[in-house]
Amino acid sequence: MELRAQRHSPGPDGPVCALGVEQGQGRMVEDGARPVVPMGHGDPSAFPCFRTAPEAVDAAAEALRSGNYNSYSSCVGLEPARRSIADYLSRDLPNKLSPDDVYLTSGCTQAIEIVCSALARPGANILLPRPGYLFYEARAVFNGMEARYFDLLPEKDWEVDIAGVQALADKNTIAMVIVNPGNPCGNVYTYEHLAKASAAKLFCVAETARKLGIFVITDEVYAHQTFGEKKFVPMGVFGSVAPVLTLGAISKRWVVPGWRLGWIVTNDPNGVFQRTKVVDSIKSYLDISSDPPTFIQMKMDFCCRLAKEELVVVLPGCAVGYKNWLRITFAIAPSSLEDGLDRLKSFCLRYSKPNK
Amino acid sequence: MELRAQRHSPGPDGPVCALGVEQGQGRMVEDGARPVVPMGHGDPSAFPCFRTAPEAVDAAAEALRSGNYNSYSSCVGLEPARRSIADYLSRDLPNKLSPDDVYLTSGCTQAIEIVCSALARPGANILLPRPGYLFYEARAVFNGMEARYFDLLPEKDWEVDIAGVQALADKNTIAMVIVNPGNPCGNVYTYEHLAKASAAKLFCVAETARKLGIFVITDEVYAHQTFGEKKFVPMGVFGSVAPVLTLGAISKRWVVPGWRLGWIVTNDPNGVFQRTKVVDSIKSYLDISSDPPTFIQMKMDFCCRLAKEELVVVLPGCAVGYKNWLRITFAIAPSSLEDGLDRLKSFCLRYSKPNK
Repeated sequence: MELRAQRHSPGPDGPVCALGVEQGQGRMVEDGARPVVPMGHGDPSAFPCFRTAPEAVDAAAEALRSGNYNSYSSCVGLEPARRSIADYLSRDLPNKLSPDDVYLTSGCTQAIEIVCSALARPGANILLPRPGYLFYEARAVFNGMEARYFDLLPEKDWEVDIAGVQALADKNTIAMVIVNPGNPCGNVYTYEHLAKASAAKLFCVAETARKLGIFVITDEVYAHQTFGEKKFVPMGVFGSVAPVLTLGAISKRWVVPGWRLGWIVTNDPNGVFQRTKVVDSIKSYLDISSDPPTFIQMKMDFCCRLAKEELVVVLPGCAVGYKNWLRITFAIAPSSLEDGLDRLKSFCLRYSKPNK
Repeated sequence: MELRAQRHSPGPDGPVCALGVEQGQGRMVEDGARPVVPMGHGDPSAFPCFRTAPEAVDAAAEALRSGNYNSYSSCVGLEPARRSIADYLSRDLPNKLSPDDVYLTSGCTQAIEIVCSALARPGANILLPRPGYLFYEARAVFNGMEARYFDLLPEKDWEVDIAGVQALADKNTIAMVIVNPGNPCGNVYTYEHLAKASAAKLFCVAETARKLGIFVITDEVYAHQTFGEKKFVPMGVFGSVAPVLTLGAISKRWVVPGWRLGWIVTNDPNGVFQRTKVVDSIKSYLDISSDPPTFIQMKMDFCCRLAKEELVVVLPGCAVGYKNWLRITFAIAPSSLEDGLDRLKSFCLRYSKPNK
């Protein structure tokens, strides 16, 4: 997979509802003369004038036909896709991201779910923008966090009310969320608002987060989809000031929300997410989320020796809650299965005590 | 989408790990003479001899090319797919399922996640089989439930130890989980073990659940993938004895775990899941899970009148946490947008107080 930017820019959309699906299937109710105008539900892919690139469709169809992409993913996502996203995002960043900074998710929705789960701890709170996307509150509260709202300032093109953020934060505040480009306001934050290099730097997002000792979660699902002259600046540029978790997806720029591919990216040159175990938390949640646990990492002498001496991989029974058993899959090519069982037999014969 | 059964039957597999992905990409480490035999990781789709039906690939590729399936799904899943799954499962059931009994998920993994979240309440416990699939425990514990293990009996072809289930259950027990066909044991439960019509009926799963007042969660992701003579009997057949949540996916029978399509199905002719709000819980969790909330259902006089009189749908500001504002998406066809804004303007002019 390689990410290429789409040229056309559908505008910001947002919350989704069942109505949209019906619209997508052309089942709008009309009153005879006038069609329904659906300006509530934001999903441009429902309209024929918004179509993803033919190259993207071809690549996905080809992947299906190859038969090489029917298998389970790994918990963090396939490496080539993570590398591609790292390269794509690195174009706009001072530090080059590695594939290990990227965690694939089932759309930006699951990225929010994972981040809220990974950061939650008893008594914690998270700072959210108002107006904003209420899904953050839903997931934060579901995970036992308190949601506190700071204002976006209409008179300042919906900039963050930095004084409000400072007033809300306390020792239990874990992170603040910004949405840039904004949903529902369509605003785009300036470089200066995100991080000022001047004397007034305390009135920007990055320095405020640094001062408060909190993370920045930046929802950039609308990245590069801007109106007017303002250029989109990713918050990750300032990851060295305060650690940044960037959330994104192919849903908006590539107009394919139904394809369900999103990401969480750590922009953190100082390694704070590693030290504070946030990375471990994300991986742990991914383990019990998009894909099951990697039981193979468990140790058991029999299985390790069998793998080492016979190159046969089986699971220890404890992986299925059953000590002193082995768990063997038959779901491999029949000839390999026979080969493996033969080797397992020789291994057992070699180590079994002779019957006397 | 229409579900057709695959003819070939790959055997039961199971837990998944990062190794499998590497195998799928042919990156096995060999020792010169002998290839590695991967009998630990169960994902047949990694082997060229296990391929899904060409019709399935063609249908998916065609759906991509049509451009009609790029949009967000609804929270519960698209109706044609739910109807197809209801029809497919109904073949083996005494009662015909409706599409409303079916909730689509991102594979069986997310089905387990949703069911555990929907059933959890403080102090609750859930009964799980040993040996079994540890992912159930992970999700149950994550949601604050206690996991209690009953035994499967090797001497009885891995039947449920019914006496053990009865001994474990108490007033805080919500459900018991069975996996049929079994993972990791590959056993298939008889009609009699699931529900006996005879005098000994208290020693079967359905009657035991009824007596204990608990639900049955049946993991039938391997449905119809049986070895030997035993016929697969879905637990849903006995939904009138005790309410049954059936979990399944296209992953195994169609050998496409990477396609991520699973389901939760309510087999409950007596409407217990409705009365006990389990259905509401499932829907609520789906709302904050695979797809965002259906904000459109909120009431606001301005928006309702606008929709009724002008057939223009916009969101009330409260949907983005901002009272007395409107939220309009621009992500629709430009001509519709202009039309909608014109109608919004006439509506406002019609109701605005004249300037004096």
